[in-house]
Amino acid sequence: MATDISKYRYNHTMYRIKDPKASLKFYTEILGMKLLDEHHSDESKFSLYFLGYEDPASEGLVRLARQGVLELTHNHGTENDPNVAYNTGNGENGGYGHIAITVDDLKAACARFDEFGVKFVKRPEEGRMKHIAFIADPDGYRVEILENPMLKA
Amino acid sequence: MATDISKYRYNHTMYRIKDPKASLKFYTEILGMKLLDEHHSDESKFSLYFLGYEDPASEGLVRLARQGVLELTHNHGTENDPNVAYNTGNGENGGYGHIAITVDDLKAACARFDEFGVKFVKRPEEGRMKHIAFIADPDGYRVEILENPMLKA
Repeated sequence: MATDISKYRYNHTMYRIKDPKASLKFYTEILGMKLLDEHHSDESKFSLYFLGYEDPASEGLVRLARQGVLELTHNHGTENDPNVAYNTGNGENGGYGHIAITVDDLKAACARFDEFGVKFVKRPEEGRMKHIAFIADPDGYRVEILENPMLKA
Repeated sequence: MATDISKYRYNHTMYRIKDPKASLKFYTEILGMKLLDEHHSDESKFSLYFLGYEDPASEGLVRLARQGVLELTHNHGTENDPNVAYNTGNGENGGYGHIAITVDDLKAACARFDEFGVKFVKRPEEGRMKHIAFIADPDGYRVEILENPMLKA
């Protein structure tokens, strides 16, 4: 019985969402992820949605062999429960911070987010860090938008 | 001004840690990640640590071009402040859940975690999901341990 830690991979990050319709629209239409896999449990009343970017490095890989996967957990019924508002980690004693998406062009990406009415936590021109923006997903989770100059056309 | 969402990538996940010594030991020695980059701000009194697995798909990529990076944020002084205990997202209204690491052999990986005295939230044999375990990092953040059968020797 042995384990080879050089084979370990960071597969995914999970957080809970209130309304899958709103979140799937945000992560696929607005941020461009693909829905890689989903799992629904009628018995335990939850659904899991696995999202990620298709890219040459992960083409052909099944979900478990990938890196860079986001798992969204929906506990059924929260979308109609006015008392459900998840702690997104950035309040008092908040531990969890954000995920980060690299984009080709920060300004153009932000202009497009505006077309979708996405809420900004920090626009590029605000504060000292001009090369990043923070937007909020439908639950308020922060998504850092980071320009990768190598992706610029 | 245009943006091509097919170029977007999921780069990293960030959370805050109390004590970088404990966390770096956990993520490098125990989980086998490499420290890819770090950034220290004396003025704003924080440090960022970027960790990830080296693998063929990401070899030669700079940190910004990668997927599967974990960013740990250390606000200086928290390691000696008994009042600092981060909300790890799994209490009441908890939104953030966990990261997941795929391993070659779940049983062997867990036996090795025991050698390091790692705290288990759920051992493989507990509950219905025998193919996964949950361990806790030094702050209590949950790390899912998931066997990828394709990695088995």
